[in-house]
Amino acid sequence: MTPSEPPHPEGAEQTSLVRPLAVVAFGGNALIQARDLGTVEEQSRRAEEAARWLVEICAAGKDLLIVHGNGPQVGQVLIQMEKGATMVPPGTMDLAVAETQGSVGYLLDLALRNRLAAAGMDRKVATVISLMVVDADDPGFAEPTKPVGPFFSEYQAVRMRRQNGWRMMEDAGRGWRKVVASPRPLEMLGLGTVADLLARNHVVIAGGGGGIPVVPLPDGGHRGVEAVIDKDRTAAILGTRLKAEVMVIVTDVPEVYRNYGKRSQRAIRRIRVKQARRLLDSGHFPPGSMGPKIESAADFVDASGGRAIITNAASLRRAIEGEAGTTVVP
Amino acid sequence: MTPSEPPHPEGAEQTSLVRPLAVVAFGGNALIQARDLGTVEEQSRRAEEAARWLVEICAAGKDLLIVHGNGPQVGQVLIQMEKGATMVPPGTMDLAVAETQGSVGYLLDLALRNRLAAAGMDRKVATVISLMVVDADDPGFAEPTKPVGPFFSEYQAVRMRRQNGWRMMEDAGRGWRKVVASPRPLEMLGLGTVADLLARNHVVIAGGGGGIPVVPLPDGGHRGVEAVIDKDRTAAILGTRLKAEVMVIVTDVPEVYRNYGKRSQRAIRRIRVKQARRLLDSGHFPPGSMGPKIESAADFVDASGGRAIITNAASLRRAIEGEAGTTVVP
Repeated sequence: MTPSEPPHPEGAEQTSLVRPLAVVAFGGNALIQARDLGTVEEQSRRAEEAARWLVEICAAGKDLLIVHGNGPQVGQVLIQMEKGATMVPPGTMDLAVAETQGSVGYLLDLALRNRLAAAGMDRKVATVISLMVVDADDPGFAEPTKPVGPFFSEYQAVRMRRQNGWRMMEDAGRGWRKVVASPRPLEMLGLGTVADLLARNHVVIAGGGGGIPVVPLPDGGHRGVEAVIDKDRTAAILGTRLKAEVMVIVTDVPEVYRNYGKRSQRAIRRIRVKQARRLLDSGHFPPGSMGPKIESAADFVDASGGRAIITNAASLRRAIEGEAGTTVVP
Repeated sequence: MTPSEPPHPEGAEQTSLVRPLAVVAFGGNALIQARDLGTVEEQSRRAEEAARWLVEICAAGKDLLIVHGNGPQVGQVLIQMEKGATMVPPGTMDLAVAETQGSVGYLLDLALRNRLAAAGMDRKVATVISLMVVDADDPGFAEPTKPVGPFFSEYQAVRMRRQNGWRMMEDAGRGWRKVVASPRPLEMLGLGTVADLLARNHVVIAGGGGGIPVVPLPDGGHRGVEAVIDKDRTAAILGTRLKAEVMVIVTDVPEVYRNYGKRSQRAIRRIRVKQARRLLDSGHFPPGSMGPKIESAADFVDASGGRAIITNAASLRRAIEGEAGTTVVP
C-alpha cells in the first residue's frame, strides 16, 4: 500500500471517480471558540467557516471523511442534563455523545451542503451515527482520567459521588468535575457503510466526538458504556481501515514546533514517524495537547503507510499540497 | 407502479438482492412509554423490544426504512435546555430535533444490530442525520399550533414570551407551553443517500423526529428553522419518493375503528383510500390522534399506489402479511 493508492475498502464498489481519501479531524471548538457564547446561531456561522476550508479538500481532488470533536458541545449537554435532573432523568455519557453526533453533525452537514452547492461541486453529504467498539478491559475503565462537563463545588462533588456513583476529580484548581474513561477505539461498527458512501460520491461525517463507545457482549452483540473516545485516535483508526492517503489533524497552530515557547523554537515541516516517536517518548510534546495528536498521527502513518498532517484551518489547503503544516511520513 | 414493484429509486444501483421496501413509522413513545421514567437504561430495553418487531419485517423479505418519532425525547431535551439556560445558551428547536436523531437513532441502531446478529440475518444498519425541506410560507409558521416541551406557569410564560420571543399557549388546563410551527415536509435533503444505503443491504433509520426542518435560501442553500415535522407525513413522503411497497404506521391499537368507543364500534380491516378520505372529511376520526395517521396513510397510497397499514407492534408481522391491522388500498 502506498500513499498514492486510491481508497479501495473491502466490499465497496468503485465509482467512475476514484479519488484518494483525506480523513480530517478537528475539535468541537471549531464551532464554539474561546470567546464565543456557544449559541446555535454562532455555531452555525462557525460551521459555515469550517465548511469553507473543508470544501477546499474536495477542490483539491480528494474524497473527504470528517471526524469532528464535541468537547464544548458535550459540555453544554452535560450541564443541561445535570440542571434538568430535577424534572427528567439525566442521560448517560454515551447518550450525550450521541446527541452531539446529531447536533454538531447537523450543523456541519447543512453548512457543507450549502458550501458545495455554492461552489458548484457535485458531491453529496452524509452524516452517520457512529458506534465505536472499545475493550471492556481497557485500562481506561479502571482509572478514569478524562474530566468532562461542568465544574462543581467539593460538596456537590461528594454528593454526586454518593448519589450517582460518579467518579469526581479536582481539575486544576477550577473545581470538581466528573471523570470518565477514555478507552482506545478498536473498530467502528458499520465501517463498510462509510466506505460505501465514500465510494458513491459522498463527503461523510462519521465518528463524531470520537464515536459512541460500545463494548462487546458475550453473545456477539454490543452495549453502550459511559466513556469518551479521543477523536484523533478514531480518525487514525478510520483512516487506516479505509486506506486513506492522508490524515489531517486541524488544530490552533500552523505547524508543530520543536522547543515550543523557547528561543530555539523551530517549526517542524516534515518528520519521519520514527523520529516523531523518539521526540514523543522523550517527553518533548506536552501530554495534554500536542502529544496525543502526534501519537495519533504516528499511529496512522505506521499502520497505513500514508502521511499525516498537523496544521490549522488557514494553512489547510497549502498543507494538503505539502506547502505548509507539519507532515509525518513513513 | 404497483405495490409489488421492487424499490428502484433514481440513481440507486440495484443489488443482487432486490426486495420490496417497507417504510415503518412509530412514535418516540415506543421507547418512553406511559409509566416509564425515561432513563437511558429503560429506553435501551424498549429499543430492544422494538428491534424484535422491526426485524420481523426483514424476516418477511422486505427492505426496511425506519422513521421514528421523538416526542418524549425532545420534551426531555427542551426541559434540559431550559433548566440549563442559567449556565449555557439553550439550543433551538431544530438543534433539539437533531440531538434526538442522534440519541434515539443510537439506541435503535445498536438494538437493531444486536437483533439482526442474534437472528443471523445478513443486513447492515445505518442511521443518517436527516434534513427536511419545508416551505417558509407554510401556513404553520404564521399560526404555530404544536405545543412542545415542559409546562410553565402563566407568569413564566409571559416572561419567556418577552425574553425569548417564544410563542406560548395554554395547553388543556395543564399549564403553558411553547408552541412551534408544524409545517408540511416537502423533500428530504440527501434522499439519494437513503436510496443508496437501502440498495446496498442496509436497514436505514432516517427522518427521525420527522426530520430537522430547513427552508430554502435564495442562493440555493438552506437554513434551519424552529419547527417540528410530523413523522407520519415524513414517512409518507419518503415512502412515496423511494417507491415503497408498503408504509406501516405503528401505534397503540391493532386496527382503526369505525364508531370508536360506541356500541357499534367495528374494526376496519381494509379500506379504499377514497372511502378513508370521505370518513376523514366527515370528521369521523379525532383530529389529534387517528386523523393525521389516516391522512398520511391516504397521502402515501394516493401518491405511490402502494398500500398503507395502521397497526400495533404485536400485530405487525401478521399485518404485513395482510392478516391483521387496517390496510388502506388504492
